[in-house]
Amino acid sequence: MIQTSLLPEDALPRGFRFAAVKAGLKRSGNLDFAVAVADEPASAAAMFTGNRVKAAPLTIGSRHLERSGGRVRVVAVNAGNANCATGEIGIAACERVCAAAAKTFGAEGHEVFPSSTGIIGVPLPAEKLVEALPKIRRLLTADTEHFSDFARAIMTTDTRPKIAHAWVDVSGKQVRIAGVCKGAGMIHPQLVPHATMLVYIFTDAEIAPADLHTLLLGAVEPSFNRISIDGDTSTNDTVLLLASGASGASVDASHPAFKMALEDVCLSLAKQIVQDAEGVTHVVELQIEGAASDAEALRVAKTIAHSPLVKTAWAGSDPNWGRLVAAIGYSGAEIDPNRIAIWLEDQQICENGGRVADFDEKRAHAYLKNPEFTVRIALGGGDGKCRFWTSDLTAEYVRINADYST
Amino acid sequence: MIQTSLLPEDALPRGFRFAAVKAGLKRSGNLDFAVAVADEPASAAAMFTGNRVKAAPLTIGSRHLERSGGRVRVVAVNAGNANCATGEIGIAACERVCAAAAKTFGAEGHEVFPSSTGIIGVPLPAEKLVEALPKIRRLLTADTEHFSDFARAIMTTDTRPKIAHAWVDVSGKQVRIAGVCKGAGMIHPQLVPHATMLVYIFTDAEIAPADLHTLLLGAVEPSFNRISIDGDTSTNDTVLLLASGASGASVDASHPAFKMALEDVCLSLAKQIVQDAEGVTHVVELQIEGAASDAEALRVAKTIAHSPLVKTAWAGSDPNWGRLVAAIGYSGAEIDPNRIAIWLEDQQICENGGRVADFDEKRAHAYLKNPEFTVRIALGGGDGKCRFWTSDLTAEYVRINADYST
Repeated sequence: MIQTSLLPEDALPRGFRFAAVKAGLKRSGNLDFAVAVADEPASAAAMFTGNRVKAAPLTIGSRHLERSGGRVRVVAVNAGNANCATGEIGIAACERVCAAAAKTFGAEGHEVFPSSTGIIGVPLPAEKLVEALPKIRRLLTADTEHFSDFARAIMTTDTRPKIAHAWVDVSGKQVRIAGVCKGAGMIHPQLVPHATMLVYIFTDAEIAPADLHTLLLGAVEPSFNRISIDGDTSTNDTVLLLASGASGASVDASHPAFKMALEDVCLSLAKQIVQDAEGVTHVVELQIEGAASDAEALRVAKTIAHSPLVKTAWAGSDPNWGRLVAAIGYSGAEIDPNRIAIWLEDQQICENGGRVADFDEKRAHAYLKNPEFTVRIALGGGDGKCRFWTSDLTAEYVRINADYST
Repeated sequence: MIQTSLLPEDALPRGFRFAAVKAGLKRSGNLDFAVAVADEPASAAAMFTGNRVKAAPLTIGSRHLERSGGRVRVVAVNAGNANCATGEIGIAACERVCAAAAKTFGAEGHEVFPSSTGIIGVPLPAEKLVEALPKIRRLLTADTEHFSDFARAIMTTDTRPKIAHAWVDVSGKQVRIAGVCKGAGMIHPQLVPHATMLVYIFTDAEIAPADLHTLLLGAVEPSFNRISIDGDTSTNDTVLLLASGASGASVDASHPAFKMALEDVCLSLAKQIVQDAEGVTHVVELQIEGAASDAEALRVAKTIAHSPLVKTAWAGSDPNWGRLVAAIGYSGAEIDPNRIAIWLEDQQICENGGRVADFDEKRAHAYLKNPEFTVRIALGGGDGKCRFWTSDLTAEYVRINADYST
């Protein structure tokens, strides 16, 4: 699998066209309205945030999927405004954009899947989006340049577009999977059959909506649900998977190669989000093992990933493993402090809950200067394990999120 | 009640002497070893961290309290080293200091209450502390200057000593309560009948250990257990309350005036910790109401207090209430998003889950420039409520904790 910000032409799933325009929602004046249109109604599966506060497009999007029986013709995504905490006005604004998009692209209203990302609590200027639709219709093209525009238009504090793709051989036919996502802050997806993470994955395999949903569930758990930047679970997180069927190859929920390829695409996109975390200087892979259960391992990983003291130590490449031990201790997981062991890659720094006798601080410090590193923690209490990816906490993260310019 | 870094002479609880020296544990060379000695074994009650990883002095301290039946002659506190994650060596080092202190001050070994704060995972240099004991014995004095030295010696990243006191009239006799504490980071006390928050409160009332414990439980819950700086619950948090009886006035667990005075002292100390939070520029009082229960209200308060996005918005005096709504949504509390209302002091900024029609952003921004402000949130779902104090998250916090100088 290749990660690239410009997809090779022969990696673009067939059956979809893409476009993006500047609708005037972003202060920067950059691309901020992205649309994907399926040639025929595509099979669709979606997952949304576990936050009890949900943005208007999530309410409308899940309602549309229900009415259409899992079919989508048009995906319409704006950045610059989350259309969340906007009440009935927000719902009406979202419905207006969907109705206009349905009319523009010759679809049913419930075949439009809306998404929004940006500031919470400010009314969505639906008019600007509606006015931009004719231009989008003229631009729609099935090529990687427009696919890349789609990926750029959905960005907020992201510094770069995030794209991943895979090819799968299905009964001698080539199936393509390509996904885009955005997200750099307010990232702790807890997708429940859960950012403002937005993920759109397209494939030209032929897959029934129920199978698509099962495949999505299986791929999201070990990828998007295993990352955190700041522990803030967004009101707008959305993962949408669309299957056009244009490859002529049929796939069901148990197809091993497709499952693996989909999971690879999801994991690549998830890691790209952490690599582009707001103010990030270090990406950390946590490997937890020896927990009472996988759930307990995840609990430990999340507590570490959300500890400001651990995250700032990482920012300073500081091998202050005592902060890791403290976080493990207050995670709520059933652990024996005297059994904790910690490795930085292959260098053990903690055994039996204390510092190793031959602790090489300089070597540990040097390792933690790498932009990406691995911290492995063995709890010595069971078979539970997990992998989890997170970022450090830097002064730049604070600057980005404390910057108040109005 | 007066807050002061130098106690008035007539506010010092009778029956205790204090001293502090430079034992060479702090790199800065400042005072780092503090001792309080009760003229007669004082009645004692203590609460420790809820972290499953507990430092050696907490293990030894609670063992000593058990053996002595809640009596303490000597409190021995070092800063510069937490003696945590130090295994059996750490236990032995702590026992060595206690034994030497017992001998120096003519007490039983189990009448010594030890505490440590500083870096985790580095062996405690017990020898330095033992060698400093004779000098401490010479310095011990019942005056506010030495009490103030005690408060300074226990500081780590604190910028100032924290002292609070109260007078209570008990049956015509004056009872004095005076407390000191330290803590500026790794602060999210969850004291269980639970910080590296260290708190020492002295009174000259005569109180039986069981009553003292009840009084301490009642005072800690609405104070130290209602603050958070970074959400990191320490391995060393300790609150110790000692009663010398030297006033000749007897108090039981239900004495209203003493209870109120003790709670006032605890709340003052708790707020002083937040006011001195690492890198703090804003102290925030959260008032949550209308929750399904007090526990649910606390859950919402803690989630807000731990949200990096909310805390960085506060650092920027940014009235981005959408981040508050998002945090409420993922808190796990049972809430109806359409009922959320938010006030900054008396200015309502959110009603029915959305922005108020007459939202005055400039006024909100100006209010949030105050070094201390109040955010009131009504959830509209029940009678549950709480107050909670926390700090903003600044680039300075990151600098302090990412600074790696070896």
